[in-house]
Amino acid sequence: MKLRDLGEFPFLHRLRERLPADPRVLLGVGDDCAAVALPGTTVLTTDAMIEGVHFRREWTTLTMLGAKAFAINASDILAMGGDPTFALLSLGVPQETEVEDLDAFFEGFLRAASDCGAALIGGNMSAAPCLMISVTLLGQTVHGVLARAGARVGDDVYVTGTLGDAALGLRMLQEGRSDAAAEQVKARFLCPTIRFAVSRELAARHLAHAMIDVSDGVLQDLGHLCAASRMGAVIDAPSLPLSESYQTLLGKNQWNTALTGGEDYELLFTAAQDQRETIGQLAQTSHCPITRIGHIVAQAEGLTVRGPDGTPLTVARAGFDHFRQDRK
Amino acid sequence: MKLRDLGEFPFLHRLRERLPADPRVLLGVGDDCAAVALPGTTVLTTDAMIEGVHFRREWTTLTMLGAKAFAINASDILAMGGDPTFALLSLGVPQETEVEDLDAFFEGFLRAASDCGAALIGGNMSAAPCLMISVTLLGQTVHGVLARAGARVGDDVYVTGTLGDAALGLRMLQEGRSDAAAEQVKARFLCPTIRFAVSRELAARHLAHAMIDVSDGVLQDLGHLCAASRMGAVIDAPSLPLSESYQTLLGKNQWNTALTGGEDYELLFTAAQDQRETIGQLAQTSHCPITRIGHIVAQAEGLTVRGPDGTPLTVARAGFDHFRQDRK
Repeated sequence: MKLRDLGEFPFLHRLRERLPADPRVLLGVGDDCAAVALPGTTVLTTDAMIEGVHFRREWTTLTMLGAKAFAINASDILAMGGDPTFALLSLGVPQETEVEDLDAFFEGFLRAASDCGAALIGGNMSAAPCLMISVTLLGQTVHGVLARAGARVGDDVYVTGTLGDAALGLRMLQEGRSDAAAEQVKARFLCPTIRFAVSRELAARHLAHAMIDVSDGVLQDLGHLCAASRMGAVIDAPSLPLSESYQTLLGKNQWNTALTGGEDYELLFTAAQDQRETIGQLAQTSHCPITRIGHIVAQAEGLTVRGPDGTPLTVARAGFDHFRQDRK
Repeated sequence: MKLRDLGEFPFLHRLRERLPADPRVLLGVGDDCAAVALPGTTVLTTDAMIEGVHFRREWTTLTMLGAKAFAINASDILAMGGDPTFALLSLGVPQETEVEDLDAFFEGFLRAASDCGAALIGGNMSAAPCLMISVTLLGQTVHGVLARAGARVGDDVYVTGTLGDAALGLRMLQEGRSDAAAEQVKARFLCPTIRFAVSRELAARHLAHAMIDVSDGVLQDLGHLCAASRMGAVIDAPSLPLSESYQTLLGKNQWNTALTGGEDYELLFTAAQDQRETIGQLAQTSHCPITRIGHIVAQAEGLTVRGPDGTPLTVARAGFDHFRQDRK
């Protein structure tokens, strides 16, 4: 059934029936606003996905798309050391959209939210020329806010998971490749992993000095962290965590995509050197790779990437800007 | 200068410099998330405006568009008896957009926010095929949440301002008319008034039993209020507040547009009969017309519109649904 046949209000009524009861929500979907109590410090983020810009319908199921729309926002909350709590969803939907597709989108979104303990409390839906998804996510920081500022000279720089897979996955989707390695990195682009356990432990045990999520490429995001901390940093390229698929597709010693590729949604953080053992244990207990990729230096030394012989590497393109003409 | 020449990050850096300092904001634009403390009960809403669906660039200045993007969200917060506090802005922007136009948009948005005491604390910007604006607005309800539910049998039904002007203004824009009356109603569509003073007093003095904002037509929105309150209502058509321009353009005794036209963003509320004098005084002190348009009855009696002779009127179209095929 198409949405224009069902109508907006009947769809929203059905949706409301699907939302689980949540004692934290004083007033949920169905009034002019949601109402909640938000004790302590609340962190808030908003991020959007637009058809033709961030995704194509033929690349992804709507369930995966819903999960990703939640994940890219959760990533920002986790990067502050926060627990996702409440989500609002603003949808622009073409009139021809199948109700079943929208149902699948909500299924993916709500499951991802529920996995993190978050509830959908509000939103809106309107007609649009293409599918447009804008999410606002709130989180609670029980153990204090873990900002980008806070890195100190001598800190180790760590990153979760592997780098560059999502950018490579996007390229494979664009090129229509479907060998095993291509499928692996495509999945990394379409279904980013939410690093919930790592973020929670880093925050609860005050292990990290500064944190950011890697959404625009590790080089650019480490640059943001350094700028906020008034620090510089050295990345050791050979220590960058590259997946097997990445190495199969690009070969060894090809760090450029890992350094500059967007949408990895991994966590990048700095910690004191004497925490190395603790962080090694955290990687084990959370079943999430955590790799030391460099260290923090004084601001005057800038941000450098070192190659295998220790000399600085030149990096082709420093991350992603939606609007610059030099965008490839 | 075009946005693609300036780039996303330089634009955001410039924007950050423009945001006024706000002691309530622990961490504002420029980290992964904003961070704020939100004591008491927080109300939240999100609403979007999409080029070609909600507006056309040739109809409006970008400053007016920014102000309206804030206003339509503020309207939801006020309808809960809340004070707007913090806003997040998710923008989809075509690459060809002039930086000056974006500046104008932010000027209108920030001025409207500042007029209500609200601060912009976060957002995102991405490329898009058309201009897309999604706002999330938070508010604080110091005096309790004023929900849609709460109307009682015998309550008077009130509405602020005049009805139907925005829908008529949209029609004038579509038809390209520019006589004086047309200009007046166009302005009502492009620049909705934020009924801040009325909402504040209604909440602070616990005058209203239930409230909603009129965004989909008073008949449909009163229907929502009645459904949430498990009540019915009678509207007396001759008492509907019609502007002079409305009467000039449509003639007298033409209530259909006032009953079903969207985007008025007026407040609709119910109150006990013994509050009539107090509400009359509130209209005076807040310099905002408040008109009694009907009363609440038992749910079984449904929702009726009465004509001048007291007999029920048939209304052509009961409000607005983005997706129904019968949309005109």
